[in-house]
Amino acid sequence: MVKLRHPETIGLRIRVVLGDGLIIGPGRADLLEGIRDTGSIAAAGRRMGMSYKRAWQLAEALNTTFHAPVIIAAKGGVAGGGAHLTPLGDQVLDAYRTLVRTAQTEGGGSLATLNTARTGP
Amino acid sequence: MVKLRHPETIGLRIRVVLGDGLIIGPGRADLLEGIRDTGSIAAAGRRMGMSYKRAWQLAEALNTTFHAPVIIAAKGGVAGGGAHLTPLGDQVLDAYRTLVRTAQTEGGGSLATLNTARTGP
Repeated sequence: MVKLRHPETIGLRIRVVLGDGLIIGPGRADLLEGIRDTGSIAAAGRRMGMSYKRAWQLAEALNTTFHAPVIIAAKGGVAGGGAHLTPLGDQVLDAYRTLVRTAQTEGGGSLATLNTARTGP
Repeated sequence: MVKLRHPETIGLRIRVVLGDGLIIGPGRADLLEGIRDTGSIAAAGRRMGMSYKRAWQLAEALNTTFHAPVIIAAKGGVAGGGAHLTPLGDQVLDAYRTLVRTAQTEGGGSLATLNTARTGP
């Protein structure tokens, strides 16, 4: 991997499109990670600056994307219920993070070229 | 690389964000490729279902993204002028295509996991 001049500014935003449409991208991955970290869909959404409604819609979209649910949620209760990832959800999130990391590492030469094209030699 | 069940349906859409913002993504790459193939910004845009105005705007955005122009265009004339990529433009397009191909190949295991999560084992 070629070393970049400003590694802190590098970002690859990867959307995985398989079959009918989007499977997972940066937003969906962040929501899954937020649910894993906070145990709550609402809290995961807040962390991303997302409304309660939008976070729930995204969670529902995620749950119909795969062959089985990736998020288990309890909607009711005084505390607003809790949520957690299923083993499949963990697997999806981990595979996506690995994919991005791999692309960033193995694509280091291409990224260095693009960065130099930006800044000048 | 793990073999996927439906390789024809695989797609990685990668946006490269460096420094201030988007450097290149699928749309910008397709426009560059279209200009390289057709010798015209308008024709490149048409091929993508993009209006003449939008194609020109995107070409102008591309030209201010890098340290030097990536597209040289002649606007006037009866034939509507022509356009071509600069050597820097060729380099940017090639680096991006290589990055996507590398991510797809080296990330094959992760992609296979995501595809199985979608279809079921």
